[in-house]
Amino acid sequence: MSLLLNCDLGESYGSWTMGLDAAVMPFIDQANIACGFHAGDPLVIQNTLSLAKTHNVMVGAHPGYPDLVGFGRRSMKCSKQEIVAFMHYQMSAISGMAQTQGLTLVYVKPHGALYNDMMANIDVRAAIMEAIAEFPYPITLMLQATPAFKIHQQEAKQLGIKLWFEAFADRCYDDDGKLLARSKVGAVHNKEKMIAQVEQLCSHGTVTTVSGNTLAIHADTLCVHGDNMDGVNAIEEIRERISK
Amino acid sequence: MSLLLNCDLGESYGSWTMGLDAAVMPFIDQANIACGFHAGDPLVIQNTLSLAKTHNVMVGAHPGYPDLVGFGRRSMKCSKQEIVAFMHYQMSAISGMAQTQGLTLVYVKPHGALYNDMMANIDVRAAIMEAIAEFPYPITLMLQATPAFKIHQQEAKQLGIKLWFEAFADRCYDDDGKLLARSKVGAVHNKEKMIAQVEQLCSHGTVTTVSGNTLAIHADTLCVHGDNMDGVNAIEEIRERISK
Amino acid sequence: MSLLLNCDLGESYGSWTMGLDAAVMPFIDQANIACGFHAGDPLVIQNTLSLAKTHNVMVGAHPGYPDLVGFGRRSMKCSKQEIVAFMHYQMSAISGMAQTQGLTLVYVKPHGALYNDMMANIDVRAAIMEAIAEFPYPITLMLQATPAFKIHQQEAKQLGIKLWFEAFADRCYDDDGKLLARSKVGAVHNKEKMIAQVEQLCSHGTVTTVSGNTLAIHADTLCVHGDNMDGVNAIEEIRERISK
Amino acid sequence: MSLLLNCDLGESYGSWTMGLDAAVMPFIDQANIACGFHAGDPLVIQNTLSLAKTHNVMVGAHPGYPDLVGFGRRSMKCSKQEIVAFMHYQMSAISGMAQTQGLTLVYVKPHGALYNDMMANIDVRAAIMEAIAEFPYPITLMLQATPAFKIHQQEAKQLGIKLWFEAFADRCYDDDGKLLARSKVGAVHNKEKMIAQVEQLCSHGTVTTVSGNTLAIHADTLCVHGDNMDGVNAIEEIRERISK
Repeated sequence: MSLLLNCDLGESYGSWTMGLDAAVMPFIDQANIACGFHAGDPLVIQNTLSLAKTHNVMVGAHPGYPDLVGFGRRSMKCSKQEIVAFMHYQMSAISGMAQTQGLTLVYVKPHGALYNDMMANIDVRAAIMEAIAEFPYPITLMLQATPAFKIHQQEAKQLGIKLWFEAFADRCYDDDGKLLARSKVGAVHNKEKMIAQVEQLCSHGTVTTVSGNTLAIHADTLCVHGDNMDGVNAIEEIRERISK
Repeated sequence: MSLLLNCDLGESYGSWTMGLDAAVMPFIDQANIACGFHAGDPLVIQNTLSLAKTHNVMVGAHPGYPDLVGFGRRSMKCSKQEIVAFMHYQMSAISGMAQTQGLTLVYVKPHGALYNDMMANIDVRAAIMEAIAEFPYPITLMLQATPAFKIHQQEAKQLGIKLWFEAFADRCYDDDGKLLARSKVGAVHNKEKMIAQVEQLCSHGTVTTVSGNTLAIHADTLCVHGDNMDGVNAIEEIRERISK
Repeated sequence: MSLLLNCDLGESYGSWTMGLDAAVMPFIDQANIACGFHAGDPLVIQNTLSLAKTHNVMVGAHPGYPDLVGFGRRSMKCSKQEIVAFMHYQMSAISGMAQTQGLTLVYVKPHGALYNDMMANIDVRAAIMEAIAEFPYPITLMLQATPAFKIHQQEAKQLGIKLWFEAFADRCYDDDGKLLARSKVGAVHNKEKMIAQVEQLCSHGTVTTVSGNTLAIHADTLCVHGDNMDGVNAIEEIRERISK
Repeated sequence: MSLLLNCDLGESYGSWTMGLDAAVMPFIDQANIACGFHAGDPLVIQNTLSLAKTHNVMVGAHPGYPDLVGFGRRSMKCSKQEIVAFMHYQMSAISGMAQTQGLTLVYVKPHGALYNDMMANIDVRAAIMEAIAEFPYPITLMLQATPAFKIHQQEAKQLGIKLWFEAFADRCYDDDGKLLARSKVGAVHNKEKMIAQVEQLCSHGTVTTVSGNTLAIHADTLCVHGDNMDGVNAIEEIRERISK
């Protein structure tokens, strides 16, 4: 099984820098670019797109709740109409700015609390899928690879949209295919375990869960993190194992 | 001379309503839609586009400085890079959301202080024109009809962009072709004088200035206001004189 | 029983006007002033305080979630630390600006979703009460009068803060002492029923619920609305029945 | 001459970190704390105040233009009323939050473009001074030490407010007592020159200008920077030369 590498980028804002985007970009396949609601501003978006172009990286929108100070990490009780509208706005901003540089928006991966709400709440997921289905050209939705992926595929099929499922390199899974809560012991892998999980995912399409069981994970892409140099080094090692 | 009617719309924000958009839309040709930086939010933009579609009104972006509390009316000392980037972001947001409804972004008219700075400052104007020239498809820039219009046409020609010049129905002109400052006596016409100015503009392409002189105004479109019912009534009367 | 009249005011923002503050202020006792997070800006706050001063109206802070476009009406999953900090910030802003006009911040009434979350969620309520208890001088918390008021009084007593309970003039109560959801038939009283409810509250300290039962409501203050002229007229009528 | 050391702190925002506040605080006398308009959020302000308390550092408000994405570095054409109101709001926020921790707001130093506009424009300076004069208790205004300091003292005296003048450790002065523009060669001193300038300021109350002349600088406090470890090390060295 071949996996793409996706990473959240363009998360700086004004004078505040976040993430080592320039260091990460050469090693990844897909850039999830913040759209200005929880992070990113027009200049940051422009620079991130330019970096993606240089390294021939696929452009994705990374829309979030309108919560800058909370970095989109706080769930907000939005109506379906609100979600559809802010998805269209954020996707449009990235899409148009990408086209201005001769690039094309390929996919959308919701950010933070919006991502979690999408996975947990069918109404939020329906709003997101509908927004994507209504977009003027085909956009793929990236969401978490879980045992419920067939349900998600059916939902997507009804709206005529395509899905990509993502697995996590550095997070331990429980037997239900969910990520072990960060508060639990062993929730985040060290580098050795992370590499082992990546190799198992690529070779067998499975992970070893926290209780030692083997679980099939239907994944198209792998989420990696470039917040600091440890993260960048880990991405490099993963890249060596998964040829671009 | 035939003139189009343009109006600033979509200036509500969240729970705050501004302007009688639904009352105005049937009578105008061009909707200048706020893009979220000084007014407008994704739902407001969506609704305004929908209204424009119903009434077959041309869609324009109405980008402003990022100053919600100041409604984009305060000049901000932005760099050229900042202006280009926020123009692209705002134009993209409207363009993509318009396409989602089967509409096309046709033109851009800067808002408030950005409009004034564009008219007064060649660097701001150059940034705006460059942003439009770089956009992935042709967009017309709407700016004020002044005696300097030939200079503006040359600037636009060098970048390969098209211009539309707008005149004002309700504002008195001075002999230099500028709008008389609102603080001056006679700056804003009553309805009768407004209608007379519109008819003179249509018949002869001229206005009578504050000092009684006749001044040629090279205009493609006429700016009208729908803030209140007086404004809407005035638009109706103007519309009767200028067949759609 | 004597009731004070409280009203949400200062809900304009920049160029957007909301509420008939000047018309309402002469008839009320307590002004719940928006603090800039969901509505209100420094100039609006200043003007609202000035109006309160003119009419000798008690000053309250009306803090909300940091959600301008949602008008603080969308629940946001904030941590206790975040709630305490944004309560202190918003209370401080009103308190200092009130002192600048020779006024004193007397009480706090949370706004919108923060109010609802406070009533429904003990953690949110604890955060709000703690924030008030830590404030440098005594501030009263205004919350909804419900059958759980004794529990709320105990919670407040432990932190040494004072409570005021508010009843609603225009909303129908269910048998549990909750407001009937706005989506239900009869949820919002017409003027006649509203006046009857006010008189019953003042004379007997009770309301007649949706099912016709009589329910005791322990209220100190009555929430009235000044969004439009109907609301203002209703406030005038209520004021006549409750001497200031 | 004894000089205090002041530093801009609390410039983080949400998930974005800026400045080495914890490393800087032990070495300075005065903390200029961002108030939420260009940087800082309620939690950041709370933590910065707490840090100031631990190290017994004087609390100052560092208000800016309402421009988060521009970090308050872009001049905005605000009216006098707007400036007075947003000064009161920002000062109140810091003042109340300081009192909540048993601290007192002592002074105000405007930030970025607001600082520059204050020094260059008498109307902006008058608005700022008026805002401070109206505040419910005495607050000192910190502004730049220039040859115009006597004029500034007269302006302040008329309003009954106190001034502190600040000099810069690391910036080269021109013969007019202005800071050499950062674009010019030699505008920012290396460490050696910086220490020499600090010693000359302390011993003789003068600086050596870019052209080699000696210029008297009437300073009460010295602005230092804690953006990175080089800055922190420089502050330590300066602190050794100026006993706390």
